[in-house]
Amino acid sequence: MNKLFSDRISDVPQSFIREILKVAVDPNIISFAGGLPNRDLFPVAALKKATNDVFDSAGKDILQYSNTEGYLPLREYIAARYKKHEGLDIDPADILITSGSQQGLDLLGKTLLNEGDDVIIEEPGYLGAIQAFSVYKSKFNPVPVGSQGLDVSAFEETLSKVDAKLFYAVPNFQNPSGVSYPEQNRHDVAAALAKSATLIIEDNPYGDLRFSGKQATSFKALIPEQTVLLGSFSKTVVPAFRLGWIVAPKALMEKLVIAKQASDLHTNYFSQRVLFEFLSQNDLDAHVANIIKVYGEQKNAMERAIKKYFPAEVTCTEPEGGMFLWATLPEGMDARALFDVAIEEKVAFVPGAPFYVSKTATNTLRLNFSSVDPATIEEGIKRLGRVIQSQLPYLV
Amino acid sequence: MNKLFSDRISDVPQSFIREILKVAVDPNIISFAGGLPNRDLFPVAALKKATNDVFDSAGKDILQYSNTEGYLPLREYIAARYKKHEGLDIDPADILITSGSQQGLDLLGKTLLNEGDDVIIEEPGYLGAIQAFSVYKSKFNPVPVGSQGLDVSAFEETLSKVDAKLFYAVPNFQNPSGVSYPEQNRHDVAAALAKSATLIIEDNPYGDLRFSGKQATSFKALIPEQTVLLGSFSKTVVPAFRLGWIVAPKALMEKLVIAKQASDLHTNYFSQRVLFEFLSQNDLDAHVANIIKVYGEQKNAMERAIKKYFPAEVTCTEPEGGMFLWATLPEGMDARALFDVAIEEKVAFVPGAPFYVSKTATNTLRLNFSSVDPATIEEGIKRLGRVIQSQLPYLV
Repeated sequence: MNKLFSDRISDVPQSFIREILKVAVDPNIISFAGGLPNRDLFPVAALKKATNDVFDSAGKDILQYSNTEGYLPLREYIAARYKKHEGLDIDPADILITSGSQQGLDLLGKTLLNEGDDVIIEEPGYLGAIQAFSVYKSKFNPVPVGSQGLDVSAFEETLSKVDAKLFYAVPNFQNPSGVSYPEQNRHDVAAALAKSATLIIEDNPYGDLRFSGKQATSFKALIPEQTVLLGSFSKTVVPAFRLGWIVAPKALMEKLVIAKQASDLHTNYFSQRVLFEFLSQNDLDAHVANIIKVYGEQKNAMERAIKKYFPAEVTCTEPEGGMFLWATLPEGMDARALFDVAIEEKVAFVPGAPFYVSKTATNTLRLNFSSVDPATIEEGIKRLGRVIQSQLPYLV
Repeated sequence: MNKLFSDRISDVPQSFIREILKVAVDPNIISFAGGLPNRDLFPVAALKKATNDVFDSAGKDILQYSNTEGYLPLREYIAARYKKHEGLDIDPADILITSGSQQGLDLLGKTLLNEGDDVIIEEPGYLGAIQAFSVYKSKFNPVPVGSQGLDVSAFEETLSKVDAKLFYAVPNFQNPSGVSYPEQNRHDVAAALAKSATLIIEDNPYGDLRFSGKQATSFKALIPEQTVLLGSFSKTVVPAFRLGWIVAPKALMEKLVIAKQASDLHTNYFSQRVLFEFLSQNDLDAHVANIIKVYGEQKNAMERAIKKYFPAEVTCTEPEGGMFLWATLPEGMDARALFDVAIEEKVAFVPGAPFYVSKTATNTLRLNFSSVDPATIEEGIKRLGRVIQSQLPYLV
């Protein structure tokens, strides 16, 4: 049957994260492997009330087919929030509601990428983007990202060498590394982009979740015509609704709407209406402030425990927000091999390899702090520290 | 900016149905142009109750990320319904929950079609499938479909001439024509397929909505290993949830799950849980029986009015179910031109052209009867009959 399949589908990397998550379901395992928001913070009662209210006020309307672009009042809400939080003037007509921002990536691949087209991606970079663009058989050009932001000279060199269609970036609290681009770094990256025809896809699912530091300028503000913004309600409200959005220049938006219609006609309309009702009845900023408080405490607990239990040879990023922290093991220690030992010690993480397009083994790993309470974090990091310590003698 | 776009997106036919639907929103227009289920039949109260019950019993669970394949109890329900209604043994593991069956088409295109691959499609055929497969730059090979089902000799000839990856069919109450494949026709089509390596995609969104006649054997029963089944809750429950499914052989399912994950991670989980709760608390067959009663009366009203008001030169299909009826105007009368006159007379329909891949003008048109009450149908068909009559003198 194999000859039946398209070439493109064979190029998509199998997510071994799925395998890892299967291993990590053992309730005795303390898992830092997930990427889930904390379910204890879901606004269950407020969403239930919003749902009842839209059923009562518009029962038939909220259950019918709807338009491809998405519910206009929801798009207006998103535009108003950009204005309030970042001073951005976004036309609601330039916003397309998607089935999570993962679908935004798929639609961008669909409308922009021919086979072999060059894509610049952060390294380490977001696995979902690697998967989405792989489907369209793009060629990846990794550029290192770290605590100082994007490596601008490597970026400039890549831009000069390849005619890249797009650069995919998560400038705030990146998945997997937790790092953010500092203000000056953004200006340097934007200046390099401005000299090219490359679009930047600015994916910002975690931007609202800032514990410390100051919000930096978005690429949409720096180079609006070359920027496509992706956003999501998965981290600020709930993931199960699968509600995200794309902000794109008008010419591209026209193509995205065609692609969206061919992909699934329109995004779940019932959830759009429930979410908009929730946003109308509640203060999202107050809700987000509560998430920030909890995640911030958990991040602090993880950093304290790391200081206490990890060997000094391990270095970690210091995220100012988001859900992840990134550890670099001593040179020569393979995170995938470490994972197997860690599972025996009942602690899990995601080895770094799937976040790279240029290597298959690394000494890096991702730690999630959003869904584990501080006491459990302390215990889990203690176990992991012991595991790392136990492997030090085997380093050559 | 145009060179930024992928080749594939420029190949997707613009849906002029969208333009038509915009024209048809004038409340004075009687519209047979839509393709919507009747909103008066939506089970609003029962869905509201189901939603409250899942909020109360599993509030946090129903709001979190979930698995790519879909909620297992919902897949088990779908499998059990196939057993009960069609005697089919479907493994729930072979079912993938999709964002409507339109997404099923996109995922099948993604996993199966390389550029230039041959696809056999009914003519007239479902516009959504033409759009979905166009994205993957397939080559369409139309085979006529009509009141006797698929033209088997044309189908056999096409199979012998091209190495088609797939044949897309809507064997029950097709959109746009309303026709069904008779029992013997299915056996003949299946026999021809069995001699080839071509998969059949059996799309069955309307199969439950039968007013008269006897249910015929599905292709999944006739040639199970070569059949991919698509189903949907949009016509039997509500469209806004965007809940459909694919049943596929295991080797293909593995690829579909990868494609689904890259496309949007998973289908809206909240709606899956609400729908499953609704299906557990209510008898879907009883609900569907009510839909059938109403749609059947509306279909009868349309047929009576057609007999009364359409010139004898117009022929129409006689659907045994579904939502559409198909009219063929006298030779030489262009349905698109007729549309403009009809709008002035405050009645709308969809001209046939977008349902063909081999022509751009036709004397055929689609009439929807699901969302218009019998009295309005009588008045609308009366207007349309007058419009057609007025054009007869201009035929050469």
